[in-house]
Amino acid sequence: MTRTPASRMDACDFPQLAALLLGRLRSERSRVHAITNSVAQAFTANMLLAAGGIPSLTVAPDEVPFFTRRSDALLVNLGTLDSERRKAILLGIATARDHGKPWVLDPVFVEASPSRLEFAQSCLSGEPCVLRCNASEFRALAGCDADLPALQAFAQSHRTVVALTGEIDWITDGARVVRVDNGHPLMAHVTAMGCAGTALIAAFSALHGNALEAAVAAVLVTGVAGEIAGAHSKGPGGFQPAFLDAVFNLDSEILTTHGRVS
Amino acid sequence: MTRTPASRMDACDFPQLAALLLGRLRSERSRVHAITNSVAQAFTANMLLAAGGIPSLTVAPDEVPFFTRRSDALLVNLGTLDSERRKAILLGIATARDHGKPWVLDPVFVEASPSRLEFAQSCLSGEPCVLRCNASEFRALAGCDADLPALQAFAQSHRTVVALTGEIDWITDGARVVRVDNGHPLMAHVTAMGCAGTALIAAFSALHGNALEAAVAAVLVTGVAGEIAGAHSKGPGGFQPAFLDAVFNLDSEILTTHGRVS
Amino acid sequence: MTRTPASRMDACDFPQLAALLLGRLRSERSRVHAITNSVAQAFTANMLLAAGGIPSLTVAPDEVPFFTRRSDALLVNLGTLDSERRKAILLGIATARDHGKPWVLDPVFVEASPSRLEFAQSCLSGEPCVLRCNASEFRALAGCDADLPALQAFAQSHRTVVALTGEIDWITDGARVVRVDNGHPLMAHVTAMGCAGTALIAAFSALHGNALEAAVAAVLVTGVAGEIAGAHSKGPGGFQPAFLDAVFNLDSEILTTHGRVS
Repeated sequence: MTRTPASRMDACDFPQLAALLLGRLRSERSRVHAITNSVAQAFTANMLLAAGGIPSLTVAPDEVPFFTRRSDALLVNLGTLDSERRKAILLGIATARDHGKPWVLDPVFVEASPSRLEFAQSCLSGEPCVLRCNASEFRALAGCDADLPALQAFAQSHRTVVALTGEIDWITDGARVVRVDNGHPLMAHVTAMGCAGTALIAAFSALHGNALEAAVAAVLVTGVAGEIAGAHSKGPGGFQPAFLDAVFNLDSEILTTHGRVS
Repeated sequence: MTRTPASRMDACDFPQLAALLLGRLRSERSRVHAITNSVAQAFTANMLLAAGGIPSLTVAPDEVPFFTRRSDALLVNLGTLDSERRKAILLGIATARDHGKPWVLDPVFVEASPSRLEFAQSCLSGEPCVLRCNASEFRALAGCDADLPALQAFAQSHRTVVALTGEIDWITDGARVVRVDNGHPLMAHVTAMGCAGTALIAAFSALHGNALEAAVAAVLVTGVAGEIAGAHSKGPGGFQPAFLDAVFNLDSEILTTHGRVS
Repeated sequence: MTRTPASRMDACDFPQLAALLLGRLRSERSRVHAITNSVAQAFTANMLLAAGGIPSLTVAPDEVPFFTRRSDALLVNLGTLDSERRKAILLGIATARDHGKPWVLDPVFVEASPSRLEFAQSCLSGEPCVLRCNASEFRALAGCDADLPALQAFAQSHRTVVALTGEIDWITDGARVVRVDNGHPLMAHVTAMGCAGTALIAAFSALHGNALEAAVAAVLVTGVAGEIAGAHSKGPGGFQPAFLDAVFNLDSEILTTHGRVS
């Protein structure tokens, strides 16, 4: 799998880039190995399958290096962080680095437990191409509020891209800052929505050499699919299948019409 | 989060109480830490999110005390009882007791394994505010059939509320006995339905000081939502999203019209 | 639970057999203990419940012998193969053999990790009544391509039935070969679809003494339900509930009209 070279795109091109990467994911069927929490495993796998990728999800430490090597990207999610997952994550990150595979970090609930915060810090030193988090998680990791200068400083000092998701999504590599305004309130009433979105960032990072652009494209796909699903749902139950269907059916026209990137 | 003081309500007030507690859950966004089986984790989280609460689900022993402390209630479910869960459950219960948080016990499949029965007995000695079980589970725990006098005696001697769910649901604190007649046959064809219902009991116990009333209100919400979902479903597949949507949209009028409490 | 005696049926009888076994599963409510991966647990349980069976899913080694003994069949799935699952699987297989319960093997991703391949080989020596796999998994296990003579040779030398699923499904006990042509492309975009199908093979094996016929009937039910669900779905999200509803509502007429067995 060849990654497109890093480039600098104008904001208006992101819907096109998202459509392009979705198209490539569907045809090249990139593999993502996801070491993720037990709550999110099924929805994460279904998100990747809906988008066109191929997921694997084992957390057994002796198997993770093999699964990471045959994958195109690695997702590390710190939810339900039991002892086997801790070992698996460190081995997965080391394997990804050794083999030049992009890897993405989702530090779920890192504000809730000191041991998780410490573990997240040691993961960060492995330089994920993207860190996807919400405001509370960022605050715990950075020790300060999640305002734009703080996001940029953090991205620069950790040599990563920060994708802060919330009502508005902000993505920055320290230099560039992109804002995505898509999404739907029902997304906050479905578990593992953020985790699944991060899995798509990993998949797109496998296909596109610029991590900021890959992250923006994935956040855009998630937000637009959420918006479409939300418009047709009576609640969070129907929203879930509608969201996966929207991801499956997204195309360049829908992304261009609905995408709000600036 | 302040819990309303314990009170004694007439049966006819339960739909109102359920609506009130749902309203408060939606506005106060109570946190429930759920140590639950791996099969039920996603549905339990989605049930709590649909009802307005905020779930967390880690089972790592070193993290459970932190997650329990920052939660408003603890759910302990004995399904898929691996060694890490056993340790986590004992730590969670101890933390809940130390910090005066209500906790609720769901002794899934306790009739199937001697070690699980023994473990459940030691959990019970930690005095959950509510024990939610079915008839087979009660029989294993109590050593006798699940008739009303047995339920009452068990509730009294264990200083808990017993919520026995089945075609008819019975809830008793030893003195009062409440019967709920809602529900739908399709609920028996969806996994983790009971587990999710118990999570709602935990959420309501965080908001209301009388455990019997909190349990009745939660059982009522689950039963009414099941009835509404069942009326619009062709099978257990469509039932699941319809159930979550019904929970999300329940209001005082629907609960009063549909609720059958006596 | 009595299993119908082994028999030899004509291909044209398989839809009838599938309807018969579904009917018996619904009335006798056979129990299947599923030691399966954490991604597939909920969907597998929901598949069994939709079909009429009763699932249990613990992976705790000290409990698995008890759960296996009280079940009518055992499912062993090698996904997310952590250390606790390895112990549980060996104990489960030994218990099933000691008590004459049929057991079925699903060697998920066996091609991806050497330790999993070795473990799968040792499972196979416990003579599952059916091995359900895809072409890559078969290649890893057999050391050769998954053509018909190879499937037959493997079935004979391992004294099992091989059910190879893919665009076309092939089932053989070494002597007889049956081909099933049902299914839908969306099935490949839903996680745990194959795992759930294998659970139904286990359930039918509990009811019918001829493993090849039980496997064909289960593969047929899965394929026909998939076809019906696919015809009414806009994507993999809506497909999942539609699939479970189709399984729940399948009857002799639908199976006869849609079934393509030869």
